[in-house]
Amino acid sequence: MGEEQQREERWRTEAYPMKGGDGMDSYANNSSYQRGGVDAAKKVIIEAVGEKLDVKSIVSSNIFRIADLGCSVGPNTFFAVESIINAVQSKWQYDQYQGGVLHDLDHHVCPEFQVFFNDHSSNDFNTLFTSLPPDRQYFAAGVAGSFYCRLFPSASLHFVHSSYAINWLSQVPKPIIDKSSAAWNKGKIHYSNSKDVVVEAYEVQYSEDMECFLHARAQEVVFGGLIALVIAGRPNGMPHSQNPQNITFELMGSCLMDMAKKGKVSEEKVDSFNIPMYLMSPQELEAAVDRNGYFRIERLEDLPNVLQLGGRPKSEVISSHWRAIMHGMMEVHFGRDVVIILDELLELFRKKLEEDLSLMDSISDTLYTFFALLKRQAME
Amino acid sequence: MGEEQQREERWRTEAYPMKGGDGMDSYANNSSYQRGGVDAAKKVIIEAVGEKLDVKSIVSSNIFRIADLGCSVGPNTFFAVESIINAVQSKWQYDQYQGGVLHDLDHHVCPEFQVFFNDHSSNDFNTLFTSLPPDRQYFAAGVAGSFYCRLFPSASLHFVHSSYAINWLSQVPKPIIDKSSAAWNKGKIHYSNSKDVVVEAYEVQYSEDMECFLHARAQEVVFGGLIALVIAGRPNGMPHSQNPQNITFELMGSCLMDMAKKGKVSEEKVDSFNIPMYLMSPQELEAAVDRNGYFRIERLEDLPNVLQLGGRPKSEVISSHWRAIMHGMMEVHFGRDVVIILDELLELFRKKLEEDLSLMDSISDTLYTFFALLKRQAME
Repeated sequence: MGEEQQREERWRTEAYPMKGGDGMDSYANNSSYQRGGVDAAKKVIIEAVGEKLDVKSIVSSNIFRIADLGCSVGPNTFFAVESIINAVQSKWQYDQYQGGVLHDLDHHVCPEFQVFFNDHSSNDFNTLFTSLPPDRQYFAAGVAGSFYCRLFPSASLHFVHSSYAINWLSQVPKPIIDKSSAAWNKGKIHYSNSKDVVVEAYEVQYSEDMECFLHARAQEVVFGGLIALVIAGRPNGMPHSQNPQNITFELMGSCLMDMAKKGKVSEEKVDSFNIPMYLMSPQELEAAVDRNGYFRIERLEDLPNVLQLGGRPKSEVISSHWRAIMHGMMEVHFGRDVVIILDELLELFRKKLEEDLSLMDSISDTLYTFFALLKRQAME
Repeated sequence: MGEEQQREERWRTEAYPMKGGDGMDSYANNSSYQRGGVDAAKKVIIEAVGEKLDVKSIVSSNIFRIADLGCSVGPNTFFAVESIINAVQSKWQYDQYQGGVLHDLDHHVCPEFQVFFNDHSSNDFNTLFTSLPPDRQYFAAGVAGSFYCRLFPSASLHFVHSSYAINWLSQVPKPIIDKSSAAWNKGKIHYSNSKDVVVEAYEVQYSEDMECFLHARAQEVVFGGLIALVIAGRPNGMPHSQNPQNITFELMGSCLMDMAKKGKVSEEKVDSFNIPMYLMSPQELEAAVDRNGYFRIERLEDLPNVLQLGGRPKSEVISSHWRAIMHGMMEVHFGRDVVIILDELLELFRKKLEEDLSLMDSISDTLYTFFALLKRQAME
């Protein structure tokens, strides 16, 4: 395999970590949008734990094990985990003192918590470990690997959380970067305005990935355990081409093509670059959960959209947000020039947003996120 | 606190990771001596698991959890873990088919293994994760933090392994870097030929650290669980000053002082540099285990000394070995100049070895390592 081919292969199948470290461009400092999702999900998770989780019956040996899948480097993952632990502790206390009476006096020690932070092995685990909250009330561990595979022993997890992660596919669908395929996605970096065969290739990949995700989790999560998912998606019934996040990628693709036409980046490189993200609808998730059969959906609801500007211009916040996300996958594809290309791409992108304020508002204010809570069923 | 003071404080209390990555100077490529220890311990561990571990009675929920404390970056940790798993599997199979009859037909599924790789958060976990054996038969996790503190939930581990790690103290004993203290260790980098008060300061630190280690493990290891320790130490009854490893540090200290006298490194820097390693004897370990009270020593024996030369000159192998070990702590203390200082130090060290072959043989061929197997006792 030639060097270029190797790079392509690596790009197609590898992980695209968020920008590591804690610098200005890092994911750690540009994930306030995702933080909004975590905050919005917090309330729902607290309610759901109260209603749906029977802590005492699912915990053996008094250890409650939580996994955050696709955790990146924090701080969002730490907030999310803290919320879950607080919710479980409250539920546990409530159950102990139900009706004003302390039940089961011999066993009133609250479970200890062990939290597994998972992401690809290319994730910046060293930064994650050094930034763990010093006052945390749990034992922390890192687990490297794709959550589309098995990561944990059987029946060893009580709560799985995953935020803005399962919208990433395990890989770019093969046909769309195969020049000889009808689904070759020339001149595009995503699928929303592409040929039907391209959209189908993304749908097939999504379907396979979600089956792997649910199959692996069905083995890992104890009966009665929960999975909470915060998902960047698209509303039921909305065509891909009208979904704000798809529109964003479409716009970025056109900026890249503009750069290619000016010779700032190789057109062939842009042809072979595709974003491995599928924006699923709640109905699509329901169908996948039904097909898998091991989980019941306990909650499924839209989350409010929260873009925190922190006093900065909206166009700047949006482009910084996407910069942290695009950096990893563009680096693998475009190599050393990534910073120059990314600088120009995001500058072009920002200009287009400023020229079309209604477009800017639509791709920022209506970005669609939904929440799903799955409970592991004991099989008949 | 001034910058220099901060550096000193950082140096006194921080972790000194082995050289990360997989370069020529890395620990990964310069740990063949420690590999010898792992190999020598393998046979003893297999025997000990066979005799002392009742897999079925200690494993609940069919998951066998192993921790390697102070694992560094591999490959030694992977060999060690593989040996333990093979030994546990053999023991488990033997118990199932004891007397030629398959007992307990309903429960003959071998436990799944979950392995926790632990080291300080400054350890190169990204290299560790990317170099995990692809064909491993366990679920892997990384745990960052000092093993002198709690790292795992109560009663959650079945087997703890630690190789060439608990000879490292949690910190340089405070009095020996305090200019106003009687134990100020001027002109020395270790304790073997120092004043009695210096030796005592090291002994006190060792004693406190070992108490913390055993106290934390007593909570984490299940009743009947095992701790296997491979320890760089000194034979019972041998004075510190005659122990080959102490002699090595003494020699390195004198090389550093030679460099200071030639102005190649600041004398003050050398005065405040001390190696936080205590070479305990098997008797000292026994005393600590007795004081703690939660474990019984099941095996305690010397390991054969194996320096693998791989066709390279002995003096070169020895200096590469120490280079990988010294790099981390010297970097924190000497800052950016570490490579230059280390180059010259190891060159001087190598020359001194070549000038005195009997010294070289004594500090390489008689380096003392011992093995201890501890079993967690159920308390009365």
